[in-house]
Amino acid sequence: MTAPAAEGIATRGFAVKAADAAFEPFEFQRRDVGPKDILIDIFYAGICHSDIHQARAEWEPMVPSLYPMVPGHEIVGRVVKVGSEVSKFKEGDIAGIGCFVDSCRQCGACHAGIEQYCIKGSAQTYNSTEMDRVTPTYGGYSKHYVVDESYALNVKAPDADLPGVAPLLCAGITTYSPLKRWGVGPGKKVAIAGLGGLGHMGVKLAVAMGADVTVLSTSPSKEDDAKKLGAHKFVNIRDDAARAAATGSFDFILDTISANHDYNTYLSLLCLNGVMVIVGVPTEPAPLNAFSLIGGNKVLAGSLIGGIPETQEMLDFCARHAITSDVELIKPDYIDTAYDRTVKADVRYRFVIDMKNA
Amino acid sequence: MTAPAAEGIATRGFAVKAADAAFEPFEFQRRDVGPKDILIDIFYAGICHSDIHQARAEWEPMVPSLYPMVPGHEIVGRVVKVGSEVSKFKEGDIAGIGCFVDSCRQCGACHAGIEQYCIKGSAQTYNSTEMDRVTPTYGGYSKHYVVDESYALNVKAPDADLPGVAPLLCAGITTYSPLKRWGVGPGKKVAIAGLGGLGHMGVKLAVAMGADVTVLSTSPSKEDDAKKLGAHKFVNIRDDAARAAATGSFDFILDTISANHDYNTYLSLLCLNGVMVIVGVPTEPAPLNAFSLIGGNKVLAGSLIGGIPETQEMLDFCARHAITSDVELIKPDYIDTAYDRTVKADVRYRFVIDMKNA
Repeated sequence: MTAPAAEGIATRGFAVKAADAAFEPFEFQRRDVGPKDILIDIFYAGICHSDIHQARAEWEPMVPSLYPMVPGHEIVGRVVKVGSEVSKFKEGDIAGIGCFVDSCRQCGACHAGIEQYCIKGSAQTYNSTEMDRVTPTYGGYSKHYVVDESYALNVKAPDADLPGVAPLLCAGITTYSPLKRWGVGPGKKVAIAGLGGLGHMGVKLAVAMGADVTVLSTSPSKEDDAKKLGAHKFVNIRDDAARAAATGSFDFILDTISANHDYNTYLSLLCLNGVMVIVGVPTEPAPLNAFSLIGGNKVLAGSLIGGIPETQEMLDFCARHAITSDVELIKPDYIDTAYDRTVKADVRYRFVIDMKNA
Repeated sequence: MTAPAAEGIATRGFAVKAADAAFEPFEFQRRDVGPKDILIDIFYAGICHSDIHQARAEWEPMVPSLYPMVPGHEIVGRVVKVGSEVSKFKEGDIAGIGCFVDSCRQCGACHAGIEQYCIKGSAQTYNSTEMDRVTPTYGGYSKHYVVDESYALNVKAPDADLPGVAPLLCAGITTYSPLKRWGVGPGKKVAIAGLGGLGHMGVKLAVAMGADVTVLSTSPSKEDDAKKLGAHKFVNIRDDAARAAATGSFDFILDTISANHDYNTYLSLLCLNGVMVIVGVPTEPAPLNAFSLIGGNKVLAGSLIGGIPETQEMLDFCARHAITSDVELIKPDYIDTAYDRTVKADVRYRFVIDMKNA
């Protein structure tokens, strides 16, 4: 299949053309490199669970799925061309792209550098449109991306680490932002609920921030993994005695669980004035008992990825602390299988597509 | 009926002896005035909805109901005797008592002046025991109370205002504390959800703090009342157009609703980074959609009354701003009727029992 002919830069990627379709090669155009744009030769693209939700139209009608769809918003590659007014990048630099590639640039959120909350709605990296609301966006399962330098990130990491850097652009910032906002650091008792793509980043980041970190999981088999990632403790949430012993003990819980679960159970593990932040999105609303919050002056909050300045801060933090995502590198012909395995949580902890050699 | 004979100060009040019983006179003893105690001649006692829940055993098994029960934790009266080591009060002063009368005094919460969260559990003003966990506590529907001065508040208000001061000890601090904690003040758009005993205090306090205040209610008939209380705007939450117009518009919502309601609807009215605090306790858990919080980086928090230092701060704030509760003063023989009317929300906005003349 081929997108309508247009001016621009010919490239190719991998797309689905319907919710139940397999991935197949897809040729399309990127726009020409404008004065403020950079052209990225994509090396690696992470597979985020939200790619699967959108490719399979599981978020409709809230998020319509536009086909053909080239997913991918965890992108790392080399800058191969820069526009005349570009100042942040030069040819040969390594750059990253996350969940969005443009925004209105005029609203309070954009001015505050939290473009993910742009009042007009930011342009998502794929399954979306440019800010003209017409031109479709295609994601990182492709050879090239053209993006305004203001929406690209500087990556400083050894070449060998780049596959593990790609997932930082979504899983990394999604967990870094709430940990930072709520003051996680030395002296804080922190729990990471769920040990998947988000959770394993949460563990590494919270440990690097100096906190005392516990993993909360329903799978006792994950205890070894948790410890290997740096967690200090592990609580099997289904073990009544272990859960009771942990009651009231955490300053902060990062809830990365996307399966349906009981918020009240996790809130009971917070100490007085404790904070739990939800970054996983269960498919069903969950019953919340008012007293779960009132009883200990507790806070339940949400957090959505992060803005460009904070994403850069996160990448720099990860570079200083040698933090990357644990990944399984795959070829593009394995995407469908990787999707199935991701749904079964059969990955430690992120699939990354090798687009460099595709 | 009569409590077991004991040393102490004979007094009398009004008690229920079972969940379905009517109030009747009750004679009992207060403890002798110790070195740090004060004896208060009670003038006024507010009727809080939690009095009804406990008198009628509606919170069992979470909160057991102990009979005979003398409710009342919104208490104002005159100090008529002080212990040898008392420094905060002298005879003739006006004093108040709120929801608790003692705590462990040793835990982190007690040291921080948030004794309502005492790790050992504070001694509630009624339907509880002293910290010896044996001696029952009887509340403010009575002629006298003996309390350690550390758990009593100084009240500075004209005599005529004292009936309206009594409800500040629970409804006032319950609403003041979250408004203060979350920075409500000039430039903030604040909504008060629900216009009952708590809500009407929330309106007065938020207006006095300088915020732009909107009342959210399901009863369009309350618009006039809201405006009279000082609210700047009113939104009938069941009016789709009005609700849509208010979407994303509030920095802060104080949710005082104790009936079951949909948190997601109210959260949708918060702007980016907005905060909603729950102080009402619905009887059933309510479904929470994760995206209601994630979508705008929002916070949902709980809050439970306030500690002694902040309660004093609230009383001083109310004195400076001439804020009292709107009350209907009743005689003790009207308590049962007042309970029925409170349940029907047929009160503007708090019944207060005249114990001075009882």
